[in-house]
Amino acid sequence: MHTLTVAAPSHNYPIFIGQNLLAGLAGHIRPYIGKKAAVITNETVAPLYLAAVQTALDELGTEHFAVILPDGEQFKNWQSLNHIYDKLLENRAERGTTLIALGGGVIGDTVGFAAATYQRGAPFIQIPTTLLSQVDSSVGGKTAINHPLGKNMIGAFYQPQAVFADLDVLSTLPPREFAAGMAEVVKYGVLGDAEFLDWLEGNMAGLMAQQPDLLAQAVYHCCKMKAEIVAADETERGIRAWLNLGHTFGHAIEAEMGYGVWLHGEAVAAGMVLACRLAEQEGRLKAADTARIAALLQQAGLPAEPPHFPFERWIEHMRHDKKVSDGVMRFVGLDKLGRANITAVGDMEILRRVLQPYLPA
Amino acid sequence: MHTLTVAAPSHNYPIFIGQNLLAGLAGHIRPYIGKKAAVITNETVAPLYLAAVQTALDELGTEHFAVILPDGEQFKNWQSLNHIYDKLLENRAERGTTLIALGGGVIGDTVGFAAATYQRGAPFIQIPTTLLSQVDSSVGGKTAINHPLGKNMIGAFYQPQAVFADLDVLSTLPPREFAAGMAEVVKYGVLGDAEFLDWLEGNMAGLMAQQPDLLAQAVYHCCKMKAEIVAADETERGIRAWLNLGHTFGHAIEAEMGYGVWLHGEAVAAGMVLACRLAEQEGRLKAADTARIAALLQQAGLPAEPPHFPFERWIEHMRHDKKVSDGVMRFVGLDKLGRANITAVGDMEILRRVLQPYLPA
Repeated sequence: MHTLTVAAPSHNYPIFIGQNLLAGLAGHIRPYIGKKAAVITNETVAPLYLAAVQTALDELGTEHFAVILPDGEQFKNWQSLNHIYDKLLENRAERGTTLIALGGGVIGDTVGFAAATYQRGAPFIQIPTTLLSQVDSSVGGKTAINHPLGKNMIGAFYQPQAVFADLDVLSTLPPREFAAGMAEVVKYGVLGDAEFLDWLEGNMAGLMAQQPDLLAQAVYHCCKMKAEIVAADETERGIRAWLNLGHTFGHAIEAEMGYGVWLHGEAVAAGMVLACRLAEQEGRLKAADTARIAALLQQAGLPAEPPHFPFERWIEHMRHDKKVSDGVMRFVGLDKLGRANITAVGDMEILRRVLQPYLPA
Repeated sequence: MHTLTVAAPSHNYPIFIGQNLLAGLAGHIRPYIGKKAAVITNETVAPLYLAAVQTALDELGTEHFAVILPDGEQFKNWQSLNHIYDKLLENRAERGTTLIALGGGVIGDTVGFAAATYQRGAPFIQIPTTLLSQVDSSVGGKTAINHPLGKNMIGAFYQPQAVFADLDVLSTLPPREFAAGMAEVVKYGVLGDAEFLDWLEGNMAGLMAQQPDLLAQAVYHCCKMKAEIVAADETERGIRAWLNLGHTFGHAIEAEMGYGVWLHGEAVAAGMVLACRLAEQEGRLKAADTARIAALLQQAGLPAEPPHFPFERWIEHMRHDKKVSDGVMRFVGLDKLGRANITAVGDMEILRRVLQPYLPA
């Protein structure tokens, strides 16, 4: 088992990464749990792993109840959040009751936001069950739900008490979900040092085959990068925004197609290639670099091109991005592989050139 | 004009207290406002003061739009919050857009929570227009909305950029609202030094007649006490809970009668007398002390007794209180006038004795 510490300004906490964590969960979770807990998960994850968590809580003598949400990005909304609040209140959850998020990014984000706002802040624990949530969304305290007019529009920065990433659970992940998580791994490859990108290129086949030692290395490396970035910039005033590489385009794809149609990771994959093409348009990146990233994504079974829809729809979605400032759209761009920047794009023609191949005839 | 600073651990900010603040708002507000603002108010306050705020924003060249909610505690809910989110997104409010809360405690709490959660945190300014919000709720960063099962159940600690308390606006307050605000002033009298309580007893008639110099002194003193308490304990781990004196009983009254039927301050007034009687039951307070507080509240035109409803209903409401821990109800109690405590009440018979005079036959 590997352990990392996220030294966020608001609050320090550990990330545990390893195999067989759920089987020994009682021992691992003991220091982070009180007398009462709510386990919040979804209809897909509950049959697989809810019992393991409940057994651990029984062993600890922790009173607990479960809340089971429907599965999918389209349920990361008010209705799910209110359902959680209702269940917490009906079950007399207190300000000290621990909320346990058992699931992928949607569960982690929604439960994290419920914890941030229930009685003005309850403790919560992340047990991420997808590759995407293990390498990215469960770490760093970004919580949110979607609004019909924009993804993650309603949320808070609120850190968990601990994160438990059990690599074994990834074996039950549908291949498409596993691949979607690999998009965020590739993101760390694009943002990080050349060595990690090289390593990913050399090991993508083994990673996709879920070789345990490779997976452990990848998850650990991504969490370590994220922990360092969050320690430096908890509330995204600066470099943390780099982690949104590909996300402005990606969010537009998700919103346009309907939440859940394209998986978040799939949209981010196509979005990262568009971010590379934007950097090309600005003369910062070579076409060969873009091709290299696209090839790596395709090796992971991910789309390197977006769906086709009108330019005006792209702009409409991206106008609601959280990086928009004084009406000007801003993107996470690249100076070169391994170094991101924030690019203000006032000239719509640049965007049109980037998106031109994907606009309807 | 008086100025106070709230030195909250998360964030320092000023409170401006004085007459004629709205007339000169542009000059006062300039350092705290960006290029875009949303003024959020209610149907009662908008006809009175919205134009003054809009004029100030026009003077500053700040782009702005207004959101007008229905008036009343019963609208401190999801629907209002969602309406704010919708309007913010429709009007392309950004993460840097300033939300201005123009109204009483309901507006301040709701807008504060919207600011805490819009794009994971937008700046906001409080312009409290009721006595209650000027002396208490606009200061300290407690934001929340109600849930059908409990008051202020969903919220966050999130500090404003600045608070502007214009004493002149109190002249348009309905007498019942003004009196309700006086309940929180009396609360500071009960919690504070003997001198302030004596001063209140000596000047309640003048305060109720809204003598400007007396009002300024009272608002300043209450804000100063609150600022000190918030600086010591921003997120209510300790002494900040004392400010909830009378509120556990009061919230039960509000919930039982239906939000908005008893005003928050009226319920807190009756609740404070019940808190005194609880302290009597525990042998900490003399009946004469309770009588003194009840008399002061009555001088302010406030109820010193709660409405009558069954014991089981009291318990049902109070079980959802945020101070409940490990299933045990906790109340803000009094060791003596001027010194509060947190009293765990495991024995329901003590509560029954306190409430006995107000239970249906």
